[in-house]
Amino acid sequence: MKQSKLFTRTLKELPKDEVSYNAQTLVRAGFVDKTVAGVYSFLPLGWRVINKIKDIIREEMDSLGGQEINMSSLASAEAWKTSGRWDSLDVLFKLGGADSKEYALNPTHEEVVVPLVKKFITSYKDLPFSVYQIQTKFRNEKRAKSGLMRGREFLMKDLYSFHASEEDLDSFYELAIAAYRKIFERLGLGDKTYLTYASGGSFCKYSHEFQTLSQAGEDLIYLCNKCKVAVNKEIIEEQSVCPICGNKDLEEKKAIEVANIFKLGTNYTKPFSLTYKDKEGNEQLVIMGCFGIGLSRVMGAIVEESNDGKGIIWPESIAPFKVHLISLGENEAAEKLYQELETAGIEVLYDDREVSAGEKFADSDLIGCPYRLVISAKTLKDNKVELKKRIGNDIELISLDQITKILYV
Amino acid sequence: MKQSKLFTRTLKELPKDEVSYNAQTLVRAGFVDKTVAGVYSFLPLGWRVINKIKDIIREEMDSLGGQEINMSSLASAEAWKTSGRWDSLDVLFKLGGADSKEYALNPTHEEVVVPLVKKFITSYKDLPFSVYQIQTKFRNEKRAKSGLMRGREFLMKDLYSFHASEEDLDSFYELAIAAYRKIFERLGLGDKTYLTYASGGSFCKYSHEFQTLSQAGEDLIYLCNKCKVAVNKEIIEEQSVCPICGNKDLEEKKAIEVANIFKLGTNYTKPFSLTYKDKEGNEQLVIMGCFGIGLSRVMGAIVEESNDGKGIIWPESIAPFKVHLISLGENEAAEKLYQELETAGIEVLYDDREVSAGEKFADSDLIGCPYRLVISAKTLKDNKVELKKRIGNDIELISLDQITKILYV
Repeated sequence: MKQSKLFTRTLKELPKDEVSYNAQTLVRAGFVDKTVAGVYSFLPLGWRVINKIKDIIREEMDSLGGQEINMSSLASAEAWKTSGRWDSLDVLFKLGGADSKEYALNPTHEEVVVPLVKKFITSYKDLPFSVYQIQTKFRNEKRAKSGLMRGREFLMKDLYSFHASEEDLDSFYELAIAAYRKIFERLGLGDKTYLTYASGGSFCKYSHEFQTLSQAGEDLIYLCNKCKVAVNKEIIEEQSVCPICGNKDLEEKKAIEVANIFKLGTNYTKPFSLTYKDKEGNEQLVIMGCFGIGLSRVMGAIVEESNDGKGIIWPESIAPFKVHLISLGENEAAEKLYQELETAGIEVLYDDREVSAGEKFADSDLIGCPYRLVISAKTLKDNKVELKKRIGNDIELISLDQITKILYV
Repeated sequence: MKQSKLFTRTLKELPKDEVSYNAQTLVRAGFVDKTVAGVYSFLPLGWRVINKIKDIIREEMDSLGGQEINMSSLASAEAWKTSGRWDSLDVLFKLGGADSKEYALNPTHEEVVVPLVKKFITSYKDLPFSVYQIQTKFRNEKRAKSGLMRGREFLMKDLYSFHASEEDLDSFYELAIAAYRKIFERLGLGDKTYLTYASGGSFCKYSHEFQTLSQAGEDLIYLCNKCKVAVNKEIIEEQSVCPICGNKDLEEKKAIEVANIFKLGTNYTKPFSLTYKDKEGNEQLVIMGCFGIGLSRVMGAIVEESNDGKGIIWPESIAPFKVHLISLGENEAAEKLYQELETAGIEVLYDDREVSAGEKFADSDLIGCPYRLVISAKTLKDNKVELKKRIGNDIELISLDQITKILYV
């Protein structure tokens, strides 16, 4: 894409109404726009990043056998009353309908998915399966904070699994943990993201969070360096040892909760009477798991953890563009290279604007594409282009006829 | 995908709580599920169709130069008060926030997009451009009706264009009309969908709708068979002639409004003071256009207009799968062909279930994929597979080693 056509532009100064680094930087670089506190719109650069995060999550959920659906954002008050959460969940947005009925704006979808799958489950033969969606959630927060991390409106993937037995849920749960690890690796957060033990509720001893170590985190977690897992604050207050090895020497760290997974058991299938007939013909309650991951929060966490003083450093897997091509007064040669890279299927942001070299370099660092190419009279003298990775300081001069091959990996 | 794995199944009977053919059929075939009146969730088959509709629309909007974004569903009451619609738009869902503020759940996004782009427009050099999104909209309807056609929650593409002059908007408007025509052609609705003159409001004489002829339509339109355009009811009451050629002999037809486009002029840029500096340095109001299309409504319209007594007949461009492969007791050979087709990138729904041939054929007609393949002991005797198109009755026997090549077009 040509940068001269992009309707957004970077801001010279940090937005005054943002406190968190992630929101300040994403707003300044033109990735997101704050509609109102805790509510963001995604601009062209930011929407490209979100779509790449979506694709990674979708691939891993498909590999897990999840079937993609899209559930409604509105649900009836009755469904939320059936689960018992209409009154107990304080962040539930409630709406009065013109039909004199009340609606909920879903912060999570158990109240939609359980009645939905109930229409299709009769026998043990219909189990197990899982469904997922990537969709907007709403939380009526008293105070929005931490930029994209705790919003009133945000993007989530939520997968719900349905099983005939606890054992079957248990084995799916392990597969889901493996899929989540793969997602965080692909998102460039693998090293910093810990499976974290959290309290499990009535059905099982533990649930789990995925926590990404970050000074910007709102949570405190306690790392066991032997097991490479962590426990959250609730758990540490109960038992103060590693739940796997009993290690007492846990390290306190700040972290961002980027995902959580939960064995729901019959918590929701019971109130909605979601049952199946077992082999003997007896009615049994379906056993459920739920597996969430926050897309906008992941985006915020990546910005918090992958940056330098100059701007964002996107992992290649989710960068808005792979290459930022900068023309310093040599738009004819740059245009030719731009076309060549596009033809090869390499995503390029081409800075063809009539602004100073300094502004182009500063914007390039702020926006944070993995590879920067500069074409100038100086590089063209030898038929070359300057290549610099966003990480590191090395600058290479590459022949124009080699560069597409080098970047096409 | 293997049909045995699909968690949905077709219903034997029409759902009793649906009146419209599109909702009855889409629910019965397992494409959508009604959460509550006027609010639908999209199931795996339906979500595949929606994604294909999205892809077609996205391609045409990208060709038009539109930049894809994703705006928030929530907006502040202040924004809606600034435009003057907080009190006047009766279908606006209003929410009370835990922060004691009021929010709107957007049925359209002028109130978000105008303040958003205001941050990036200063000069005539920043114009023209357009942004679009494909996203959920909400309308607080007193009565939901016509299935997917008039819901409380629905999917829309909305594009907003920004111009320095009326002439520039006018020429973009013509390009947008051409893009819309292409979209409806690609969706298989080209022949039945008419550019329809509607009243234009304060800024210009006419706006336009795209109306698809259908007995299920809620609208009456008046066709001019000379000009191949139509006028809507409001216009006919004013002037009762074709606005292009003056023809008085207009034909009354029922139709579904699948899209509308509008020259907004300064209707929204004025209250939000969205201005630019012209070449002489004078502040001028930005001129706007908006261009909508209802995705869930398009899906409903296609079902209404492309079906027979047995079920849906999807156009190939948006079918959930290109091929429905049915095994009649020959799962080994069918599995092999299924793998071969998948490897060739042909989308296949493979009916590997242990149910009767009659049930498989009935489901296949109901679900409506363009090509049906049947493998049975009879066809395998000659190393063949039976090919039938969803439209028409011709059945061909094709060699197993030829079928992938034939379908790979």
